[in-house]
Amino acid sequence: MRTALLVIDMLNRYEHEDAGSLAESVAGVVPNIRRLVDAAATQDALVVYVNDNHDDWAAGRDELIRWALDGEQPELVEPIAPASDVPLLLKARHSAFYATQLEYLLRSRAVERIVLTGQVTEQCILYSTLDAHIRHFDVAVPRDAVAHIHPELGDAALTMMERNMAATVRDTDDLIEFLT
Amino acid sequence: MRTALLVIDMLNRYEHEDAGSLAESVAGVVPNIRRLVDAAATQDALVVYVNDNHDDWAAGRDELIRWALDGEQPELVEPIAPASDVPLLLKARHSAFYATQLEYLLRSRAVERIVLTGQVTEQCILYSTLDAHIRHFDVAVPRDAVAHIHPELGDAALTMMERNMAATVRDTDDLIEFLT
Amino acid sequence: MRTALLVIDMLNRYEHEDAGSLAESVAGVVPNIRRLVDAAATQDALVVYVNDNHDDWAAGRDELIRWALDGEQPELVEPIAPASDVPLLLKARHSAFYATQLEYLLRSRAVERIVLTGQVTEQCILYSTLDAHIRHFDVAVPRDAVAHIHPELGDAALTMMERNMAATVRDTDDLIEFLT
Amino acid sequence: MRTALLVIDMLNRYEHEDAGSLAESVAGVVPNIRRLVDAAATQDALVVYVNDNHDDWAAGRDELIRWALDGEQPELVEPIAPASDVPLLLKARHSAFYATQLEYLLRSRAVERIVLTGQVTEQCILYSTLDAHIRHFDVAVPRDAVAHIHPELGDAALTMMERNMAATVRDTDDLIEFLT
Repeated sequence: MRTALLVIDMLNRYEHEDAGSLAESVAGVVPNIRRLVDAAATQDALVVYVNDNHDDWAAGRDELIRWALDGEQPELVEPIAPASDVPLLLKARHSAFYATQLEYLLRSRAVERIVLTGQVTEQCILYSTLDAHIRHFDVAVPRDAVAHIHPELGDAALTMMERNMAATVRDTDDLIEFLT
Repeated sequence: MRTALLVIDMLNRYEHEDAGSLAESVAGVVPNIRRLVDAAATQDALVVYVNDNHDDWAAGRDELIRWALDGEQPELVEPIAPASDVPLLLKARHSAFYATQLEYLLRSRAVERIVLTGQVTEQCILYSTLDAHIRHFDVAVPRDAVAHIHPELGDAALTMMERNMAATVRDTDDLIEFLT
Repeated sequence: MRTALLVIDMLNRYEHEDAGSLAESVAGVVPNIRRLVDAAATQDALVVYVNDNHDDWAAGRDELIRWALDGEQPELVEPIAPASDVPLLLKARHSAFYATQLEYLLRSRAVERIVLTGQVTEQCILYSTLDAHIRHFDVAVPRDAVAHIHPELGDAALTMMERNMAATVRDTDDLIEFLT
Repeated sequence: MRTALLVIDMLNRYEHEDAGSLAESVAGVVPNIRRLVDAAATQDALVVYVNDNHDDWAAGRDELIRWALDGEQPELVEPIAPASDVPLLLKARHSAFYATQLEYLLRSRAVERIVLTGQVTEQCILYSTLDAHIRHFDVAVPRDAVAHIHPELGDAALTMMERNMAATVRDTDDLIEFLT
C-alpha cells in the first residue's frame, strides 16, 4: 500500500493574528516533520507539500518559498523548505483537497495511505483529515508533527480524527515505520 | 440575502452504536427543528433535507422516510418528517456537500446564508459547516437544534464553527429571526 | 474488472423543443438499452440510471418515473423504466457526474469500466463520456443504444469519444459481451 | 459583469503525436491571443493561463514556461508567454476546471463571463466550455483564437459550443469589445 506524506501550510510568514501561539507550537514540530520527510525519501513514500498562496495567483513555487523565508520566522521555514524535486500544490482555502490537484495526484500515484503533518491541527489538518477519510484514504497523524493555535481545540481535533475519521494518531517515532 | 434551512441526517433508525446518547440529545432538539421548519415556511427561506441513504442507492425518498419511521425511535422522526414538497437530497458520506447536488441547488436558488440543524454536531454538522464556509456561504448554527453523541466534542465542534468557520452560533429563538 | 451500465436521461416526456427528432432516434435505441439492461442483470454488472429532475428537487424516483410515463411518448419510457431495485440518481445539469453521487457510487462498487447508453449522444452522452474518461474509467458506447437530436453532431460526438476519450464505440451486440 | 480571458495549454513543446497539424493551426491563432491579452490588460478583464503540467508536479511556473520555450516551436510560445503578474494554474487532464483552482479563483474575483482561447478546439477548449457552461458562466469563444488538430472535429466542436452550451462564437475582432 503506497503512502504519501503531506506537509500542509508550513510556508508561512507568521505575521498574522495568532502567529505567536502558533509559532511556539510550530517550533516543536519542525524537527519531526524534517525527520518524516527524510524517512519518506528513503522509502517509496511520495512527499507532497500543499500550501495556501495568500491569494496571490501569479506567484509560483519559488516566489512562495521566498515569501515565507522572508517572513518573521525563517528558522521555522528553512529546515523544511521543499527540495526542488518535491511536488508543491497551491490551495486557496482550508482543506488541502478543496479546489486543488491533490486527489488527482494521489490517485495517479496509487496512494492509499496518507501521513498528515503541518499546521494548524484544529483547522487545516482537521479539515484535510476529514477530506482524506471521506475519500477512503487511510490517514495517520503524528501528534508531535502537527502544530496548533489553541491547545484544547487541538486536542479535541485529534480526538475527532481518531474517533470519527478512523485516523491513526501516534508519535512521529511510531509513524516513521508506517511510511515504509 | 436568501437563506436556506438545512436538516441533516434526521431520518435515522437509532439502531447503530452510540444511538443511545445520540437519541437522548435528539429528543431535545426535535421541537426546535420543527419550529425552524415552520418559521422557514412562513418566510422566503428554502428548506432542504440532506440524509445518508445507508448505502441503499435504489431507495427513493419515500422508502427512506418509511425506513426511518419503522426504526427504534419513530417519535424522533415523525415530528420532522419532510413534507412532500420539501427537497430531500441523498448523501453518501459525512458532509452534506460531498458528492451531492446541494451546492448546485443552493446556488440555483441564490442562497447565500445557511442555517444548519440536525445530527451529529461533532460530525456531519461540523463537516457541513466547514464545507459551507469554504464555499463562502454564511452559516448559522442553532446550538439547541443540533444533536451530539459526545458532549465535550459537541462543544468543541461548536467552538470551532464559531472561531474558525465564522459561524453564528445562537439559540433557536435568536435564529428564527435570522430566517426572515 | 467490474462494469457498470449507465442509462442516461431516458425518463423524458418528449415535450421540449427538438423532441421530434430525438424521439425518432430514441425509438431505435430503446430495444437495445432493454437488451443491455437484461444482459447486465445476468452478469455481475451494476446498472445505474441517472436522470435530469427538471429542477424539481422534491420529486422522488417514483414521481420522476410517473412524470415520464405521463408524457407524450410513454412507449419510449415503459420498456426501460427502472426496476425498483435499480439505483436511480438525480442530476441537475448535463453530465451524469456533475454534482451527483455517481463517482462515489461507482468507486464504492469497485467499478472500473462503464457502458454508456441513453440520450443525447452529442450532449449528455458526450459530456458523461468525457467526465468518465477524465476520471480514468474505461468507457464503451454502443452506438445503437444512444440517441441523437442532430445526426451530424451525433456522429462527430462518437468520433470525439473514440479518438480523444479512448472510448470503445461498437454495436450493442458486441458490447453485450463486454458486460460479462 | 466581470470578464476573464482564459489561455489554455499554449505552453507546449509541439513534440507529441498530431503536433504538426496542431502547430499549423496554432500559428494562425497566436497573434489573436496576443491581441486579446493586450486588450484585457487595458480593461478590467482578468487574464488566467491554465496549462497541463505533463505530469511533472514539482515543476513551478518558471520551469513550465522554460520547458515550452525549449521545445520544437518556441516562436509559437514566446509571443504569448505569460507575464510574471499573470495567474497561471496547472491542470492535470483535459478541462481547465477539473481538479484545479480555476472555479474558486473566478468566483473570488466575481467573474461571470469567460472568453476561452488556446488549444485544442475539439478537446480542452470544448471541455472547458462545457465545464464553464455547466457552472453557469457565460462563455465566448473567438473562433480565430482557438487551434484545432482535426478541422472537421474543430468545426463540430464550435457548433456544439454554440448550439448546446450557449456560447457566443465570433471572430477576435468582435470579442475584443466583449472584454470591456
